[in-house]
Amino acid sequence: MIKFNEQAKIDSVNGALALRPHINEIIDEICKAGYTNICWLGIGGTWASGMQATIHMKEMSAIETWAENAAEYLTTGNKRIGEGTIVVLSSVTGNTKEVVDAVKKCKEAGAKVIAFLDYDKAALLDLVDYSIVYPVNEQLKFFMVADRFMFNNGEFADYEDMYKEFEQHLAAALVEVEKKAEPFAMEYAKKHCDDEIHYFVGAGNQWGATYSYAMCTWEEQLWIKTKSISAPEFFHGMFEIVTKHTPVTVYVGEDAQRPLSERVVKFIPNICENYTIVDTKDYELKGISEKYRRHISHLVLRCINNRVDVHMEIETRHPMDIRRYYRRLDY
Amino acid sequence: MIKFNEQAKIDSVNGALALRPHINEIIDEICKAGYTNICWLGIGGTWASGMQATIHMKEMSAIETWAENAAEYLTTGNKRIGEGTIVVLSSVTGNTKEVVDAVKKCKEAGAKVIAFLDYDKAALLDLVDYSIVYPVNEQLKFFMVADRFMFNNGEFADYEDMYKEFEQHLAAALVEVEKKAEPFAMEYAKKHCDDEIHYFVGAGNQWGATYSYAMCTWEEQLWIKTKSISAPEFFHGMFEIVTKHTPVTVYVGEDAQRPLSERVVKFIPNICENYTIVDTKDYELKGISEKYRRHISHLVLRCINNRVDVHMEIETRHPMDIRRYYRRLDY
Repeated sequence: MIKFNEQAKIDSVNGALALRPHINEIIDEICKAGYTNICWLGIGGTWASGMQATIHMKEMSAIETWAENAAEYLTTGNKRIGEGTIVVLSSVTGNTKEVVDAVKKCKEAGAKVIAFLDYDKAALLDLVDYSIVYPVNEQLKFFMVADRFMFNNGEFADYEDMYKEFEQHLAAALVEVEKKAEPFAMEYAKKHCDDEIHYFVGAGNQWGATYSYAMCTWEEQLWIKTKSISAPEFFHGMFEIVTKHTPVTVYVGEDAQRPLSERVVKFIPNICENYTIVDTKDYELKGISEKYRRHISHLVLRCINNRVDVHMEIETRHPMDIRRYYRRLDY
Repeated sequence: MIKFNEQAKIDSVNGALALRPHINEIIDEICKAGYTNICWLGIGGTWASGMQATIHMKEMSAIETWAENAAEYLTTGNKRIGEGTIVVLSSVTGNTKEVVDAVKKCKEAGAKVIAFLDYDKAALLDLVDYSIVYPVNEQLKFFMVADRFMFNNGEFADYEDMYKEFEQHLAAALVEVEKKAEPFAMEYAKKHCDDEIHYFVGAGNQWGATYSYAMCTWEEQLWIKTKSISAPEFFHGMFEIVTKHTPVTVYVGEDAQRPLSERVVKFIPNICENYTIVDTKDYELKGISEKYRRHISHLVLRCINNRVDVHMEIETRHPMDIRRYYRRLDY
């Protein structure tokens, strides 16, 4: 397998999981002091990760929480953000303009800010209350924060047991997903590298990933047109443009919204021949209990798409690092 | 102008505005009894209208409020919905399965439900606490509810004055918008009737309208592919696929997020020749004060697109009533 450093991948996930004691110190301190709500702040892909954390929490928790788009906060504002608000964000560069400005505004409103940054040289470092520097694994970082808040709120009895399993088995299970996905990814990339437009359908904690994968990977990095649509919304208008040859990929996860994606899976063969189903249930995850799979099916999808990306880059002959406009032009 | 019954349009808006005393009775009774949060429930286009009401309230209010997708509520659930929650919905048919089931679940959770229905024969009629039967004008109905809640919460000092202006001038101002939009709509429809795909960009209280216009009108009713993207997100990946000939329409409203759309307007000529700017500021709205325009710029956009629809139906030779799948197949 090309572009596949198994040990580096295992180390990356285990390193992220090893952040948990430090994360818990922060969250426990916040819970002791008291808080009113939790806001996941971002823009583009990081906003989408916030959507994933939000839907994950909604399934289990009564805590007020939502994903806030940084640019919308800077214009519309949000009076729910103030004293007692915990703002959580992740930023690769740590200097995305909208996010830096939004953090300043959150701080002025009295909120506390936790930032995950990929590098220790970031404009955000001096602005936030708590910062954790570690590369990639954005969703895992967010879910560790969410899970600790829910555990402390008495909403997650299995918390310790689940993370024990993750620490023992998750990293190895995820690299096995990549290996198993390899032949699929090769075939899929060959089939879809010349698509004029590609449709991605997702639901639940995979919806944010579906939205950002379509936009941040295929549009931004591969220059292929896409539309992402949530599984329930597929039936409320969008599906009218799907016919026999329309390329549609349906992501099926394992959280509470699984039936919404399954509904699309059941329907789509009636109107389309050019569809692909990516169901995380087809991947083993050795050592992970059935009941915890719902919490990580978005990570399984990420691993499958890691392999798709490698082969799309080859089949399209489009190096994924090049950009036409992003951070190249003034806007 | 074809398909344009001026008096019927004026009567429709004035009839909707005349619902306000009845709406206020309901809201005042709720405010007197107390409530904890406001949930706009819908799916597809009605969920999008809920997004518009939410962003409208966020700009002015500290009340907890959000748009809930009915299918997501039925699967993921939402522990914020319970005793003290006020659920507001609008349904043309009143029998959309997801919405009917979600209302039952909201009621079981202890919430109170206000339903706007277009017809008085609807499955929802017997399920809800308050129902108001009057056709179309969905956003206006929602905003009247939102505005009364905010007025009662001391967040909308100009409320009475604004609605006095609306009752005197809004209906006439909106038909003038349609008349002024007519030549633009004819030209735009001729230019874009054969588009392979069309991009729609919007922000603020127009974002929900942008999302649903792309999906519920162009995709569902005209069978033309679209992608809708919010103005801030345009710069976070999607714009990489825009080149000289890509058809892009940018909607510019007048609420707090106007600068986000203006940013796209300023940038797009650098990379694209086939763009259209629809700015509600270009329409007069006689009798409406400058400071109230932000509350209705989404209605101005609706009027402009009413004329676009008429001409798209002609230019595409695609009767907008026909559906391939929606409510025709089992799914």
